[in-house]
Amino acid sequence: MLTFELLATDGQARRGRLTLNHGVVQTPIFMPVGTYGTVKGVLPRSLEEMGAQIILGNTFHLWMRPGLDVMAQFGGLHRFESWNKPILTDSGGFQVWSLGEMRKISEEGVRFASPVNGDKLFLTPEISMQIQTVLNSDIVMQFDECTPYEVKGKLTTEREARQSMELSRRWAVRCKTEFERLGNPNALFGIVQGGMFENLRQESLDALVEMDFPGYAVGGVSVGEPKDEMRRIVAHTPHRLPANKPRYLMGVGTPEDLVDGVAHGVDMFDCVMPTRNARNGHLFTRFGDLRVRNARYKADEAPIDPTCTCHTCQNFSRAYLHHLDRCGEMLGPMLTSIHNLHYFLNLMQEVRDALDAGTFGAFQQQFAQDRARGI
Amino acid sequence: MLTFELLATDGQARRGRLTLNHGVVQTPIFMPVGTYGTVKGVLPRSLEEMGAQIILGNTFHLWMRPGLDVMAQFGGLHRFESWNKPILTDSGGFQVWSLGEMRKISEEGVRFASPVNGDKLFLTPEISMQIQTVLNSDIVMQFDECTPYEVKGKLTTEREARQSMELSRRWAVRCKTEFERLGNPNALFGIVQGGMFENLRQESLDALVEMDFPGYAVGGVSVGEPKDEMRRIVAHTPHRLPANKPRYLMGVGTPEDLVDGVAHGVDMFDCVMPTRNARNGHLFTRFGDLRVRNARYKADEAPIDPTCTCHTCQNFSRAYLHHLDRCGEMLGPMLTSIHNLHYFLNLMQEVRDALDAGTFGAFQQQFAQDRARGI
Repeated sequence: MLTFELLATDGQARRGRLTLNHGVVQTPIFMPVGTYGTVKGVLPRSLEEMGAQIILGNTFHLWMRPGLDVMAQFGGLHRFESWNKPILTDSGGFQVWSLGEMRKISEEGVRFASPVNGDKLFLTPEISMQIQTVLNSDIVMQFDECTPYEVKGKLTTEREARQSMELSRRWAVRCKTEFERLGNPNALFGIVQGGMFENLRQESLDALVEMDFPGYAVGGVSVGEPKDEMRRIVAHTPHRLPANKPRYLMGVGTPEDLVDGVAHGVDMFDCVMPTRNARNGHLFTRFGDLRVRNARYKADEAPIDPTCTCHTCQNFSRAYLHHLDRCGEMLGPMLTSIHNLHYFLNLMQEVRDALDAGTFGAFQQQFAQDRARGI
Repeated sequence: MLTFELLATDGQARRGRLTLNHGVVQTPIFMPVGTYGTVKGVLPRSLEEMGAQIILGNTFHLWMRPGLDVMAQFGGLHRFESWNKPILTDSGGFQVWSLGEMRKISEEGVRFASPVNGDKLFLTPEISMQIQTVLNSDIVMQFDECTPYEVKGKLTTEREARQSMELSRRWAVRCKTEFERLGNPNALFGIVQGGMFENLRQESLDALVEMDFPGYAVGGVSVGEPKDEMRRIVAHTPHRLPANKPRYLMGVGTPEDLVDGVAHGVDMFDCVMPTRNARNGHLFTRFGDLRVRNARYKADEAPIDPTCTCHTCQNFSRAYLHHLDRCGEMLGPMLTSIHNLHYFLNLMQEVRDALDAGTFGAFQQQFAQDRARGI
């Protein structure tokens, strides 16, 4: 089940409340990514403490390991990973697409060799729905083909983007049919494709809206395109989706991308950036980014961000984090992951507060000004 | 400062209360090892939750990284690593000894090349005291030479063990003089050496007791000797130390070693085993050890140890931990480190409870029986 209430709007920006089988999600929201059934380096209870309302799991990865037998035995992903709030799973489409040469796409689905053990596997819209039904994720994503921005330096043509988009559209129909046949009690989202072509995006959107999904995603962005190309699609597509349904911009992005996405009507975001960057010592702060590996922090007693209320900033200095990074100590990425995730989650809390107060425009200005100030 | 109260005895076993500058420690106690200013993979607050009362830091490692300038700026290790309870630091002697061919020992001290950057360094009893004074650890260990059990397959002779022990004894005098000159407000422990020779152990002990340290350690065990050799020294030395001073058995050991050590009058233990083994999927339980990497746990819904109250056992299954290990996910060692440390700390809590209740003999029997039962 899924219900979505629109609580306030400010231009195209929206403040909403999404109710799913495992709980309520206040939007706009950032969703931490837990590929293999774990948000890398973070205890579930830390996620709860920092205000995570919904996390992602990756269908493809969980299908490979631990496999569906284990998932079925645990009654789904929630109990397996000890997370009792909502979960969204992707369809596996992006992962098989990422296999590149190792996969073969046909009308029926995608054939590929398992990157784990070389087994020959076949993923179809129906199989994706079957896997996600076993995972029992609150939001199930349709199986789609992620249209690339370029292949070996050659930009995707409109003709290629159309073929890809139309395949995803036909797969959307098959996903919906199978999802209903399985009696899956959760919510299935359709994914708008169409590459960098507004006319194709509109066609994809129209067809999916006609099918009446409970929610919609914009896919095929953040796939290597220049930032202004991404901004163009983000400005075009989300706000044209039905106002009474949640809108999810897949795989995006930087703090600036998130605020820009909200301004263009997006409700939900996910990205590996906070955790991946944390492990590389790249930290986000209100006043710009900070590379904790830099020798200038060797003896710096300040927290990462003096305005931050996360467990890391409340207890540890830049000097300590610099030291942990230098020594390759596991506590380093543990503490920086907490900080970066808290930064993204808190940013969305501030966005929601601004939308509640009707001050989103002022927030955008202050946000841009603060971030540009530098640490 | 250090005060030690003997609360109860049962044979040679002792129940005590140790008061240090940063708090009270109930003994017997296991001390988690935090080499580089972090117990590997564990948040300080998790350590507090699982009942850690005192942790270790390594003088040699912290001298290398982050270095004394940073340590001095933070006023010592407590604030740097955000741990406000007692800390014990070793002297660096064991680490320079472990450098093998790379170090040269003389009466004055040890010359060696930094394993971090190759710098030529010199560590002496005086320098060890100076470093530990900057670290401001609650318990400072004397700089000693750790007598090896064998060198290149040749057992250490009594003559060699005597020379080594006598050097450590002379260094003990220099440590005490320097410690007092520095006005260090903490407590300095002498270390009994003497290899596998009871007569040398007694000589070392007599000389150190004469010097009236506030506490004593037994060093030079768990250095590669057979288990029965270690047991022989543990049976010989600790109970001969002054009854009104705390006794610390360095670098020991397995759960069985700890219970055996308590039975022979030891109050304090440290070992990297719980955290190191955790990272290799080797888990300790009441009913014997468990290798979570084993395929038999792939779909096992039980916690590691059904009788365990740690955060890991309260929330996660063997199947999930098996999965995390298989995927190389950081959360795996995080959760297994919590469990193993909790096991060691809880074991000592059970030992203290038994000593309080006057039932230590029965506890020893039940402990051996349970551990032998198998998981």
